[in-house]
Amino acid sequence: MSIVHVNTEGGRYAIHIAPRILQQLATSIPENTTSIVLISNTTVMPLYGEIVKRSLSVTAKPLHVLELPDGEAFKNLETLNTIYTFLLSKGVDRKSVIVALGGGVIGDISGYAAATYMRGIRFIQVPTTLLAQVDSSVGGKTAVNHTLGKNMIGAFYQPIAVDIDVDVLKTLPEREISAGLAEVIKYGMILDADFFAWCEENVQKLRALDPDALSYAIHRSCELKAQVVSEDEKETGLRAILNLGHTFGHAIETALGYGTWLHGEAVGCGMVQAAELSAQVLGLPREDVERIRNLVTAIGCPVVAPNLGTNKWIELMKIDKKSEGGKIKFVLLPKIGEAVVRTVPNEDLGLVLSKTVK
Amino acid sequence: MSIVHVNTEGGRYAIHIAPRILQQLATSIPENTTSIVLISNTTVMPLYGEIVKRSLSVTAKPLHVLELPDGEAFKNLETLNTIYTFLLSKGVDRKSVIVALGGGVIGDISGYAAATYMRGIRFIQVPTTLLAQVDSSVGGKTAVNHTLGKNMIGAFYQPIAVDIDVDVLKTLPEREISAGLAEVIKYGMILDADFFAWCEENVQKLRALDPDALSYAIHRSCELKAQVVSEDEKETGLRAILNLGHTFGHAIETALGYGTWLHGEAVGCGMVQAAELSAQVLGLPREDVERIRNLVTAIGCPVVAPNLGTNKWIELMKIDKKSEGGKIKFVLLPKIGEAVVRTVPNEDLGLVLSKTVK
Repeated sequence: MSIVHVNTEGGRYAIHIAPRILQQLATSIPENTTSIVLISNTTVMPLYGEIVKRSLSVTAKPLHVLELPDGEAFKNLETLNTIYTFLLSKGVDRKSVIVALGGGVIGDISGYAAATYMRGIRFIQVPTTLLAQVDSSVGGKTAVNHTLGKNMIGAFYQPIAVDIDVDVLKTLPEREISAGLAEVIKYGMILDADFFAWCEENVQKLRALDPDALSYAIHRSCELKAQVVSEDEKETGLRAILNLGHTFGHAIETALGYGTWLHGEAVGCGMVQAAELSAQVLGLPREDVERIRNLVTAIGCPVVAPNLGTNKWIELMKIDKKSEGGKIKFVLLPKIGEAVVRTVPNEDLGLVLSKTVK
Repeated sequence: MSIVHVNTEGGRYAIHIAPRILQQLATSIPENTTSIVLISNTTVMPLYGEIVKRSLSVTAKPLHVLELPDGEAFKNLETLNTIYTFLLSKGVDRKSVIVALGGGVIGDISGYAAATYMRGIRFIQVPTTLLAQVDSSVGGKTAVNHTLGKNMIGAFYQPIAVDIDVDVLKTLPEREISAGLAEVIKYGMILDADFFAWCEENVQKLRALDPDALSYAIHRSCELKAQVVSEDEKETGLRAILNLGHTFGHAIETALGYGTWLHGEAVGCGMVQAAELSAQVLGLPREDVERIRNLVTAIGCPVVAPNLGTNKWIELMKIDKKSEGGKIKFVLLPKIGEAVVRTVPNEDLGLVLSKTVK
């Protein structure tokens, strides 16, 4: 088992990465737990629900199971209320523990429910998609979407453990692997040029789910993310660089309706747009832009964005949480392995938008 | 102006207590604020909205004003969503500041909106009821009600300032003064026997809104609460004693429907029930029970609870956030000025319920 430690003001915890970790979940449940709430969705529960229930039954704690509909479209205030009602009707108390079994949607909404139910109860992330394993389950960002913007309602709230079973990726659709790899290569782009080069060399192994390559990619991604989050839990500065490609990506998701493109696909495409913007504004070499475009293509993500019209793009990007006083902030790359956050002139943005949409 | 400092892990801030503080609110708005959102209700806005808008206009920051319906019945997820939609539609960003002008309902729901909008933006409490001034605006508890329980959805989230204008109490209905005094005498009961005795002596002055008596009572209440919250922000131990009377009180509020009894009235009555339970279980002297009953009567709060039937009482009290593993926990008094938290035998509880309802 490989372990990554996360230390934040909001809590210290370990990320455990190993095959067959679903069978050992009981070790993550604290002694004084009064009951366990397993939250998953209609896709993951049939695949892994029984294994997880059996493994949690070792604790001999009362177990309540909630199955939610699958998809980003359900990461909203209505589903959240379904969770609250379930917790209250089962008598779930402050010493209970929520186990979130699923992808980013399950992790985000269950984590947010844990953050706000009775002003906060403990929860454990058991991410079952690559994207959730390398990104959303780590660092304590929890949220639901509002009809006017993605992840607009949320909290910084750390889990007490993250348990990553690499075996579960075998049942993941290929498209979800591609979406997850977008966040993996992101860490190389913003923080670690060597890791970016490693991804270029190993992209076929990663897409073929080679266990060693995948385990290393997950470990390194979690490690890089944990470093950033430990320095800046609440995104007052550094943490914002993790949003590379997300300003464009969120606009795509909002415009097309959540779930049309997978989050990772929108981010993959957004990173190519951010690279073009970096070339325009910061002089990122063309060669690096092409390396990025090629790697995003190689992982299987789109590199051409939908044509929303410049005004609509700008309107949607303004809702981004990094905006201040109506100014949109972008994560840009002076070079591969280094990121900065800044505003850009409207002409540059318009130019890049016209170049990166079809 | 008198000042009480609050130091918690979640933030350090000052409580300012003075007449005419509404006219000086601009001094509490940080320099880097991008916009201000004033949230109030249909009762308070016509009384103080213009003064506050004028005082905030000194900052020259954009000001957005939201008026909500008045009453505990509106402290719910639906009103919360009204706030989120307003904030998003006005382009409110992470550097904006929410100013909550009103009683406990406005403070709780605006504070919770601030805690969760974009994972947290800054807010200032400007409490306009005595209850909010001495209790709910201090300490960072924010929440909304769920149909299955009061304050079940919430967060610990500290304001950046609390500005208490004692002049506004002049327009407060007498019944609300009584409800606020219930929380004032609570601090004496759990922490400070001398302050309890001072309240006994000064109860008529307090009800007549004598400015010196009121200012002292508010200052001492905030000071005692700040002590407790500084030691235990997230209610892992000590802070629970602030819930004296609340286990009974919340059951009354839930059973009758929020807003039938004022929160302070339910707590006042609940403190008499807690005193009787303390006599039964811990041997609190009869004389002290009678002092408590007399003072609750003297401040103008009810001392006889509605007859819900023992089973209904117990069912409602189990939803309390202090419950663990289905066991109800009560704040009890070994003597006036000292509090403990514990479970009690069912027979004792049944006996006290039968004695304290009509």
